[in-house]
Amino acid sequence: MVMKLSFNTWPYASFPTWLPSYTLEETIKRLSKIGYEGIEIGAASPHAYPPTTTKERRIETKKILEHYGMEVAGMLPGLSGGPGHNVASPIPEERRHTIEHYKDVVELCAFWGGKTVLYIPGWQVFGTSLKQAWAWSVEALNEISKTAADYGVTLVIEPTSHDSNIVDRCDDAINMMEEVNKPNVKCMFDTFHALYRREVSTDYIYRMGKDLHHIHISDNDRLAPGQGKGDFVSVVNALKEIGYDGYLSMEIGFDRRDVEPDYVARQAYEYLKPLVDAVQGKK
Amino acid sequence: MVMKLSFNTWPYASFPTWLPSYTLEETIKRLSKIGYEGIEIGAASPHAYPPTTTKERRIETKKILEHYGMEVAGMLPGLSGGPGHNVASPIPEERRHTIEHYKDVVELCAFWGGKTVLYIPGWQVFGTSLKQAWAWSVEALNEISKTAADYGVTLVIEPTSHDSNIVDRCDDAINMMEEVNKPNVKCMFDTFHALYRREVSTDYIYRMGKDLHHIHISDNDRLAPGQGKGDFVSVVNALKEIGYDGYLSMEIGFDRRDVEPDYVARQAYEYLKPLVDAVQGKK
Amino acid sequence: MVMKLSFNTWPYASFPTWLPSYTLEETIKRLSKIGYEGIEIGAASPHAYPPTTTKERRIETKKILEHYGMEVAGMLPGLSGGPGHNVASPIPEERRHTIEHYKDVVELCAFWGGKTVLYIPGWQVFGTSLKQAWAWSVEALNEISKTAADYGVTLVIEPTSHDSNIVDRCDDAINMMEEVNKPNVKCMFDTFHALYRREVSTDYIYRMGKDLHHIHISDNDRLAPGQGKGDFVSVVNALKEIGYDGYLSMEIGFDRRDVEPDYVARQAYEYLKPLVDAVQGKK
Amino acid sequence: MVMKLSFNTWPYASFPTWLPSYTLEETIKRLSKIGYEGIEIGAASPHAYPPTTTKERRIETKKILEHYGMEVAGMLPGLSGGPGHNVASPIPEERRHTIEHYKDVVELCAFWGGKTVLYIPGWQVFGTSLKQAWAWSVEALNEISKTAADYGVTLVIEPTSHDSNIVDRCDDAINMMEEVNKPNVKCMFDTFHALYRREVSTDYIYRMGKDLHHIHISDNDRLAPGQGKGDFVSVVNALKEIGYDGYLSMEIGFDRRDVEPDYVARQAYEYLKPLVDAVQGKK
Repeated sequence: MVMKLSFNTWPYASFPTWLPSYTLEETIKRLSKIGYEGIEIGAASPHAYPPTTTKERRIETKKILEHYGMEVAGMLPGLSGGPGHNVASPIPEERRHTIEHYKDVVELCAFWGGKTVLYIPGWQVFGTSLKQAWAWSVEALNEISKTAADYGVTLVIEPTSHDSNIVDRCDDAINMMEEVNKPNVKCMFDTFHALYRREVSTDYIYRMGKDLHHIHISDNDRLAPGQGKGDFVSVVNALKEIGYDGYLSMEIGFDRRDVEPDYVARQAYEYLKPLVDAVQGKK
Repeated sequence: MVMKLSFNTWPYASFPTWLPSYTLEETIKRLSKIGYEGIEIGAASPHAYPPTTTKERRIETKKILEHYGMEVAGMLPGLSGGPGHNVASPIPEERRHTIEHYKDVVELCAFWGGKTVLYIPGWQVFGTSLKQAWAWSVEALNEISKTAADYGVTLVIEPTSHDSNIVDRCDDAINMMEEVNKPNVKCMFDTFHALYRREVSTDYIYRMGKDLHHIHISDNDRLAPGQGKGDFVSVVNALKEIGYDGYLSMEIGFDRRDVEPDYVARQAYEYLKPLVDAVQGKK
Repeated sequence: MVMKLSFNTWPYASFPTWLPSYTLEETIKRLSKIGYEGIEIGAASPHAYPPTTTKERRIETKKILEHYGMEVAGMLPGLSGGPGHNVASPIPEERRHTIEHYKDVVELCAFWGGKTVLYIPGWQVFGTSLKQAWAWSVEALNEISKTAADYGVTLVIEPTSHDSNIVDRCDDAINMMEEVNKPNVKCMFDTFHALYRREVSTDYIYRMGKDLHHIHISDNDRLAPGQGKGDFVSVVNALKEIGYDGYLSMEIGFDRRDVEPDYVARQAYEYLKPLVDAVQGKK
Repeated sequence: MVMKLSFNTWPYASFPTWLPSYTLEETIKRLSKIGYEGIEIGAASPHAYPPTTTKERRIETKKILEHYGMEVAGMLPGLSGGPGHNVASPIPEERRHTIEHYKDVVELCAFWGGKTVLYIPGWQVFGTSLKQAWAWSVEALNEISKTAADYGVTLVIEPTSHDSNIVDRCDDAINMMEEVNKPNVKCMFDTFHALYRREVSTDYIYRMGKDLHHIHISDNDRLAPGQGKGDFVSVVNALKEIGYDGYLSMEIGFDRRDVEPDYVARQAYEYLKPLVDAVQGKK
């Protein structure tokens, strides 16, 4: 079992604010310097929006990743078409557009050596029933998972209660995973969303168990772990208990402009690294 | 001189949050009921993202607009590719993608009878000098303005200091307008950004004068006018003084999820309508 | 490369509040006791307003500085004529008055062994275009820089977005420096203003690079570094990276009356001294 | 007995912030439009700093005042030499400089038809005893009052507890007035300072009685009257009771940048005008 630390690129991209903004090369260099072994890349400008990321740039980025020994811990869709990619939109063309975007992200992720793409199950537009929205989301996930299988990529369903309303709870993700029933469709969760729902993060870890394939670490209000009210000692211990083998990926500091990305990246690393090392018998 | 009230669709779209979310038809119906004469449409899903808005849907929307007697006060780009369309990106493909998006928005706007498209001058990515970013933005504006001219559309440059860093001040917009020097490139401003910069909104009105072609109305923190600390009596009086002929377009309540769109739309209308009627000799 | 710590006199002067208020002699004594190697002196009463600082007092102060081994890290203009010295005022006599004040400050600074005077580029009065305000500021800087050259003094342009509106951004300062194009006109920035603009302080350091000649250190809200949300570990590391050779000058605790100057001076020193020593290879 | 409303120029000057900033002509025009009969002018740039206000400008301003039928309700010193004019400075040259500034303000005030200059009794610098500071302030007031007598100007002593520490209380002002004992030295007070000290404004009115020659109106935190917690109905009634004959001068909205001057001026006028009219038997 190996737990590794990675950092999600939103604060450097940026999303959903426009600033600050760094190139992907600069971001990889900085995260490497701080100590991260992995990077979770949002498929967003100016980093990795597939339609504007040329073949040359993809190759160049691959070399840079190798140069810094930085692994792609995962990728996730960027906003597009306004609020972002809604697999549950009532507009058929929007669902189609979203599915194609996911396939592009899967392909790009695999090219850079990544094995995990996050699946955001979408949101219910007024006039659509929850059953219908769920069905469209499952349909999209089914289709995308086939492409993902071709590329050796696993899709991980993320409950995002703070922002959406289709997969809100731990069991919503598990139920969708079971309904799709594919070996390369698994679960993940984000401690931020758990805290937002006033839930206990370790409940997710024990409940998802061997199907927990990826995890987002964030304190409340997208603070670095240790800066808020979350209990990350328990999180790390629970992960060890279930034999978690994967990334702890920081998704922090991106929901507002007044963040110094290196600062939150360093805060998170310095707080979590000793905890993770301790349970893994290092130091 | 005629001043009319319009409402920007972000709280219904949504942007940058995902919820709440209404179709464009539903949005038009609701705004009409409240009393608005115009709608300012974000080119965003599920409303009007050009690549996923079919010919059929465009025609259908046009009929709905006519049915409700609702004018398109303007259109503005939706986020795409993550943080949104950056005309000043160091990535050439991203600039190209952005310019093409603007052209699509211009075309769609004209099709729906609109005559104004907002121009967001972009933001400076780390490693790009401000001079270079400015030059790329001017270059893009130049190209887009040609297409806009073909469609009888005016582009209005908006200073967005809260979110970006190229056109921050009143005079930045004026200087860019003068540098491009086209009859269909004018200025606008948003009272929210003026308040954010702790500036006086009427300073913008007097300074932009006859080149002020559009205006966003918002109190501080994206509150409806009259709910915060902004002085909208002075704004309406100053608009009358310079002979402003156009829309007062509400851009409010969209930066967070916990907003009831109809509520803020009604608050704004009920506060501003009497002020506007008074200076126009109605009432 | 040597980085040294200095302290700006505003909290002892005081400015812009009237209290607390200490003589310059008392201030030098206290800062020396805390450990500062440099003092940045505001040209303000009762410390160093040139028209009321007699020859005798200048000589006496010089002796006191020598007695305590305290270097003058820099000087900056004091408020005068109300809001302060506006090099961009539409009133010609005010611009003249301001320029003469700067020359007096340059002379006094050199007499006390200082080599740096801060240049505050002024603000735009209603009715003046930004272009005109900029031109007046450049004109003043040009004239002052000649006197400064005679005295071996370097002028450093400071972006002050929190308070003014001509030089707001990093690149505004760089552009003004390049336009004036004199060997004794360089750049500086204040981490407080960067934080106020929700920017990243190290972006300024990398961007200004070899032209960064002076730096103001302050956490958000003029708190001592380490008391707010600023990332000063990154700041010190970035300064080392670019080979910065000069003062880190605290400009803190002066914007309100309820401050104990020695307290904030000590807080800043105790927080920063170890960081600076560490990157300089001291223990 | 006639009570009239005037407005202090700080929010237009600006002081102590730099922005917003309007010329004196623009300020007179705006205050007149709102309805004010009087203007209280800070001797500050860009309005009326004596050393940079030429003879020509003085004559031009006089004509503008006459054109708008605007009376000068009073003048007060501008900041200078940093924190401002301290009549109680331990530095003899600073006291001399301050006294000369007051004489210049008296002369300018009289030239514009004003009959009142505010006297700010200064503050105690560390190392000076209160007795000594008081003595220097009385000495300065004595000298200035002679010049004021020559110009037919009355000096009014203002307790400024929020900002200074020599004349803090109602009776401090009365005692200083009695010690100087000149027919053209009277008292005033500011409801803001009374509220800051958690005192009752009408206590000042009854206590100062016939020696109350001028009054500053402000709610707590420099809000317009009626926007905070002050009781201005009682203030206006008490003024009528003592037969107050003079200006109610708004000194509001100037301690921070994010103020729209016209807005606070209008708020204050619309709130106080009916109260004043009512006690004066106008409807």
